[in-house]
Amino acid sequence: MLKKNRLFTPGPTPLLPAAQNAMAAYGAHHRTADFRALFSRVLADLKEFIGTKNDVLVLTSSGTGFMEASLTNLTSPGDKVLVLTAGKFGERWVSLAKAFGCAIETVTAPYGETIPVDEVRAKLKPDIRCVYVQATESSTGARHDVEGISKLVRALPDTLLVVDGITGLGTTRFDVDGWGIDIIIGGSQKALMIPPGLAYGAVSERAWQRMEQTKSPRYYFDLRKERKAAQKGETSYTPATSLFAGLAAALDYIRQMGEGNLTAGRDALVANAEMCAAMTRAGVEALGYKLFTPKSPAAALTAVASPTGIDSSTIVKHFREKFGAVVANGQAEMKGQLFRIAHLGYYDYMDTVGVLAALEHVTAAVTGKAVEFGSAVRAAQEVYARASSS
Amino acid sequence: MLKKNRLFTPGPTPLLPAAQNAMAAYGAHHRTADFRALFSRVLADLKEFIGTKNDVLVLTSSGTGFMEASLTNLTSPGDKVLVLTAGKFGERWVSLAKAFGCAIETVTAPYGETIPVDEVRAKLKPDIRCVYVQATESSTGARHDVEGISKLVRALPDTLLVVDGITGLGTTRFDVDGWGIDIIIGGSQKALMIPPGLAYGAVSERAWQRMEQTKSPRYYFDLRKERKAAQKGETSYTPATSLFAGLAAALDYIRQMGEGNLTAGRDALVANAEMCAAMTRAGVEALGYKLFTPKSPAAALTAVASPTGIDSSTIVKHFREKFGAVVANGQAEMKGQLFRIAHLGYYDYMDTVGVLAALEHVTAAVTGKAVEFGSAVRAAQEVYARASSS
Repeated sequence: MLKKNRLFTPGPTPLLPAAQNAMAAYGAHHRTADFRALFSRVLADLKEFIGTKNDVLVLTSSGTGFMEASLTNLTSPGDKVLVLTAGKFGERWVSLAKAFGCAIETVTAPYGETIPVDEVRAKLKPDIRCVYVQATESSTGARHDVEGISKLVRALPDTLLVVDGITGLGTTRFDVDGWGIDIIIGGSQKALMIPPGLAYGAVSERAWQRMEQTKSPRYYFDLRKERKAAQKGETSYTPATSLFAGLAAALDYIRQMGEGNLTAGRDALVANAEMCAAMTRAGVEALGYKLFTPKSPAAALTAVASPTGIDSSTIVKHFREKFGAVVANGQAEMKGQLFRIAHLGYYDYMDTVGVLAALEHVTAAVTGKAVEFGSAVRAAQEVYARASSS
Repeated sequence: MLKKNRLFTPGPTPLLPAAQNAMAAYGAHHRTADFRALFSRVLADLKEFIGTKNDVLVLTSSGTGFMEASLTNLTSPGDKVLVLTAGKFGERWVSLAKAFGCAIETVTAPYGETIPVDEVRAKLKPDIRCVYVQATESSTGARHDVEGISKLVRALPDTLLVVDGITGLGTTRFDVDGWGIDIIIGGSQKALMIPPGLAYGAVSERAWQRMEQTKSPRYYFDLRKERKAAQKGETSYTPATSLFAGLAAALDYIRQMGEGNLTAGRDALVANAEMCAAMTRAGVEALGYKLFTPKSPAAALTAVASPTGIDSSTIVKHFREKFGAVVANGQAEMKGQLFRIAHLGYYDYMDTVGVLAALEHVTAAVTGKAVEFGSAVRAAQEVYARASSS
């Protein structure tokens, strides 16, 4: 059969057609009133999307660029930082902190588990300058208790909290200002439904004050410089202009989802990911799979443990070869142990039942066992129907 | 949940992304070497797609434009024509023949049935100048026996056969030259996966000879003029240039489906529609629906009879409101009695199981009866699995 290219990866995610059109059409120079108007509008919309009164900045980089900015702008070499890590993206915080000479403490949870808040409490000391955590760990599909962690951090006067919300924003509920998150980071190729190339984040007043003292080397990712430029409707360095045009269109689409209200649209987008995730979890469990992250699964993606004796690479390969669908393998040492199906951004009911129906064939093929066709789909449909009638 | 706009209508059909990109990018003038090269390449590819050595022409019009051309170029006022009609598109042949003053004979089958070849035999007389028929009647989902009909027509020396293959090309197997079809007509917004605006057709040597004598008035649709222009790589009047760019990209995509061979790709596209159709028929029947055209269903689309006492408009409405999916209602007097799900062009496995899963919810909602979730999907999956393993 014909095979459409279908991304079920937790970033990049399927592109919003209206954003694709806007990107294809956009060709303005970035030092013009046209771009300044677009840029300022995107910043204002992102503020509402994140749900914050803090300054919002956009960097032309991947999400890792804003992670680096959150490290270099908020620390000096030798500063003590606490990294909460339970997957490949937690480990990225450790690598960044190491690269810039911080003294690193960690709270570590095994892959597939969520950060234990009690251990965070035990490790948090007043001399820790920054705490770094993921909202959702995309490598394992775990959701961490950002609210619980933020309560602990906010009890300390001189400790900042940085949240990697790259797959969390648009899939998870945050009260950024109420919880006191000092920097929260997002990426364009996630719930915002456009290609990679832009990272965005909201920066608190506490974080701006910290930047007056910190000495880690930074240039491209100098947030104070970006803030000054943004106040004039500009970026410090050449921005990825077409991606801004796409982002504006995506934010308009989210506003339409909220019938003219961007906050309501963002909440609808989160609810959509939650529904896709709940349907998917029910579907894969009906097929006998175990969730890789059963205790606190994210809505951004579902990580599914590969059946004993079966390398998840064969599952990923079957999806691609038979259905043109790209599901994600495990990363690094988790490769072969799990596969991941994304729900963040531009996914709907038919995408969700489609990937589950395909998984039924894939499962039969890789396990060699009989699969009751329709069983994963049915479990997902029951979740959908219960929610629709309630 | 988020609702993607999904067309399940038998034209327009979902757009091929590569064709959308090509259309967005194309801006050449039509009286240039660039356009002549594109145009000539499209004509050559369409020849292979149709599977004919006859001249192929493309008109900037809907399919009905080429239907009109097939009437006005092949007849003179008062000429006897035989129209084989079993639906709204059969009736269109009658309206056209009437508008241009032909003497009309018909073989009529009820909506949902296929043209009875024996009746065609009985009505065919040597003084009939032209026979007009649909390959697949899009209003009812019926497939007519073009091969059987063509054998009867070819036995007469002075009778031409015109086949509306608008939803037939790319979904049905034809031997255009072997069967002796004098004109076969296609449309851009069908199996070719681009928007409406172009009609194409292959014209036999017999048909060109006929045009030397015929006197029905024609100007924009004068095929001999178009043939002369095409020999110079041009069209008589301003062509829809961007649609030609899209068509070239679509034909390239079909060639890729055939691993570099356009004929093989076309056959794969036909097989894809057949598989989507077989899955859909099994799915809807598993839900207790009756096919509107059980005897000779087309692969282009499946027409499903609405359950007794239920207006199919409510089914169409539910699909749109709950799932963002557009399925087609019955046309004119068939409105309310049936709904139609398309398979022609850019549809894959996930589209097919997706629309069936949605139909299960829609069915529960409109009938108020319990539906076994997953049952339509399962029936479709069994069809797919049997074909995949054979």
